[in-house]
Amino acid sequence: MFREIVENVKRTSPLIHNITNYVTVNDCANILLACGGSAIMADDIDEVEEITSICGGLNINIGTLNQRTIAAMLAAGKRANELSHPVVLDPVGAGASVLRTKTAMKLMEQIKCTVIRGNASEIKTLALGQGTTRGVDADLSDSVTKDTLKQAVSFTKDFSRKTSSIIAITGAIDLVAYNEKAYCIYNGHPMMSSITGTGCQLSALIAAYITANPHNPFKATVAAICAMGLCGEKAYKRLKDEDGNASYSNYIIDAMYNLDGDELEQGARYEIY
Amino acid sequence: MFREIVENVKRTSPLIHNITNYVTVNDCANILLACGGSAIMADDIDEVEEITSICGGLNINIGTLNQRTIAAMLAAGKRANELSHPVVLDPVGAGASVLRTKTAMKLMEQIKCTVIRGNASEIKTLALGQGTTRGVDADLSDSVTKDTLKQAVSFTKDFSRKTSSIIAITGAIDLVAYNEKAYCIYNGHPMMSSITGTGCQLSALIAAYITANPHNPFKATVAAICAMGLCGEKAYKRLKDEDGNASYSNYIIDAMYNLDGDELEQGARYEIY
Amino acid sequence: MFREIVENVKRTSPLIHNITNYVTVNDCANILLACGGSAIMADDIDEVEEITSICGGLNINIGTLNQRTIAAMLAAGKRANELSHPVVLDPVGAGASVLRTKTAMKLMEQIKCTVIRGNASEIKTLALGQGTTRGVDADLSDSVTKDTLKQAVSFTKDFSRKTSSIIAITGAIDLVAYNEKAYCIYNGHPMMSSITGTGCQLSALIAAYITANPHNPFKATVAAICAMGLCGEKAYKRLKDEDGNASYSNYIIDAMYNLDGDELEQGARYEIY
Repeated sequence: MFREIVENVKRTSPLIHNITNYVTVNDCANILLACGGSAIMADDIDEVEEITSICGGLNINIGTLNQRTIAAMLAAGKRANELSHPVVLDPVGAGASVLRTKTAMKLMEQIKCTVIRGNASEIKTLALGQGTTRGVDADLSDSVTKDTLKQAVSFTKDFSRKTSSIIAITGAIDLVAYNEKAYCIYNGHPMMSSITGTGCQLSALIAAYITANPHNPFKATVAAICAMGLCGEKAYKRLKDEDGNASYSNYIIDAMYNLDGDELEQGARYEIY
Repeated sequence: MFREIVENVKRTSPLIHNITNYVTVNDCANILLACGGSAIMADDIDEVEEITSICGGLNINIGTLNQRTIAAMLAAGKRANELSHPVVLDPVGAGASVLRTKTAMKLMEQIKCTVIRGNASEIKTLALGQGTTRGVDADLSDSVTKDTLKQAVSFTKDFSRKTSSIIAITGAIDLVAYNEKAYCIYNGHPMMSSITGTGCQLSALIAAYITANPHNPFKATVAAICAMGLCGEKAYKRLKDEDGNASYSNYIIDAMYNLDGDELEQGARYEIY
Repeated sequence: MFREIVENVKRTSPLIHNITNYVTVNDCANILLACGGSAIMADDIDEVEEITSICGGLNINIGTLNQRTIAAMLAAGKRANELSHPVVLDPVGAGASVLRTKTAMKLMEQIKCTVIRGNASEIKTLALGQGTTRGVDADLSDSVTKDTLKQAVSFTKDFSRKTSSIIAITGAIDLVAYNEKAYCIYNGHPMMSSITGTGCQLSALIAAYITANPHNPFKATVAAICAMGLCGEKAYKRLKDEDGNASYSNYIIDAMYNLDGDELEQGARYEIY
């Protein structure tokens, strides 16, 4: 299943419109190029609808939102919906401020999002309409563990039904749900949390994967999450004594550049619930 | 010829004012430092004229333009012109939106640009006043190949005469024209298109090269393009099995850091038309 | 002394709110993660007070300031003061434009800064109310050398008394003063000036160190500066023939990731004045 999804990305080279934060934007562009896609960043209200129109998919990330870019996110999202382009929403820091929570809620309400991806605290905030996010990282109390897995799967499925979106909660264990079905993904490495932007990169990657696989966005989302995690594992194995999180960050993107469908097919580790 | 140009950059350490996009800005700063120059980024209308005044050259890149920064670009460009500072214009994505096309046209009309550098689609858009750019990448139909070379040389020379600017169209083959003369540059590697920002870096580099070589901006532009391409070749040779586009990006900047005039003199590959 | 300071950072994982420039922001986030801290970037006036409230410390860097973010800096700083959170001010380019000088002065006057860190030209500008900064780099005439050390120590102590802040002037030799006491730090490597953002990273690092060591911000500042310099030395030793400033930049962050308290205790080189 994953082989074809990966090859579709490389074959069709989806162009993704990103309205994203200025912290990790360079890594988002490079991960999109690494997977075989292409990126354009544009956030001015006077051009976002046009830019979205020439792209295949849209990735909205509220990591360094401001009044100017919030309006652009809404306009781009609506245009993407009109064109039936897939949309990914990454509600970075939802719960950390009223502005982030309200903006994420507004985007979720006014735009049909194909995928909403965040950490446990961010998604919980969207589901409850308020939150307790510790900055851009998940609260420990929210994280998905073996003990809370069953409950978390149920919560994720519920929220998917409520929003009609594919919901991805990523962390030590990743959960992806759509309606009655959920995948529990075990790829990844704890060191991924020691670099900035793996979450942002994953959202951009999902946008490329679902754009290149329009008939199967759910499996494409699962594939993207497995791919990112697998690259985190490969990059970790490559680390030498003196390497740290900066080299690790490069190695992850490098791994994505070298990833092919067969490798993902063999390396993906997940269970279906 | 190139030896002296490169040494002038290292000797005079030109300070370049960049009004550029937030995607590749870090790489632009590091390539300027790598070549022996120095960088300052400033985009607020209240300071850009002053910042331009203390710099030697100006690099305008519309990659993530917005209403606020467009005004700053115009103000800085006019001030640079008053001071006879060299100006590089990089019309990223011209043709991809009306805002980008109009802004690039306005900058070109209101500011005397020493060099205008873009891909084939962007430059074609500026020449025709409208375009068909596929995001920030060139349309395949616009790219310069051996078959279309003669016609492209003629087009580039024409546009140079019309604008009184040095015109650089970069891609698999790079063309640089000024009035009746053109250089066709064969340095570079296809993998350069798999990382974000090689074009932006090149525009910043050109700004440093022409600022350090005020009596010969045309040859300085040619030298900068050869240098960037040669670094792309050297970086490619350095790649190990597990390396990908992230490491490649670092290796290109590393190569620029280690490049000297002799190496460029020997490694530059071009023809004159 | 340094051992405990470093371990406190790793143990408490301070969350730092950064209002910083878009040039080096990614490196700031990664150095904060490397040292054991955590980062959030937020610059919209509608959320900065809230974001500051959930963080442990605030890092204000005016590298690419604009009217929108200046207001956010002031609001966040005042809130941090109300909560007795430590604040670092990095007056990037103060002296290079009236806007930067005035903004840095205003921030210094309206906000109680725990630490003000800049190069010699920037700090001199703040002390005199006007300056001659060469872009974001120090004027040679301002740099601290063995010949000017005594005078510089006296100046730094004076300015510390005047501002009631810890003052850090970093360059080939680093000076840190608080009231009647000053440290002269000899860690570091000249190649650190060939990459963008070592200063910005240092300010972010100081914010993490003083947040994790609330009872000893002066020594924590000294520790952070020694740590950054030591990482610059370690990274330099790691360079291979083909490496340049891009790899060097990664190696510095890598070195911070691997730094422990014992290593800093042994590697710190300083004198007390």
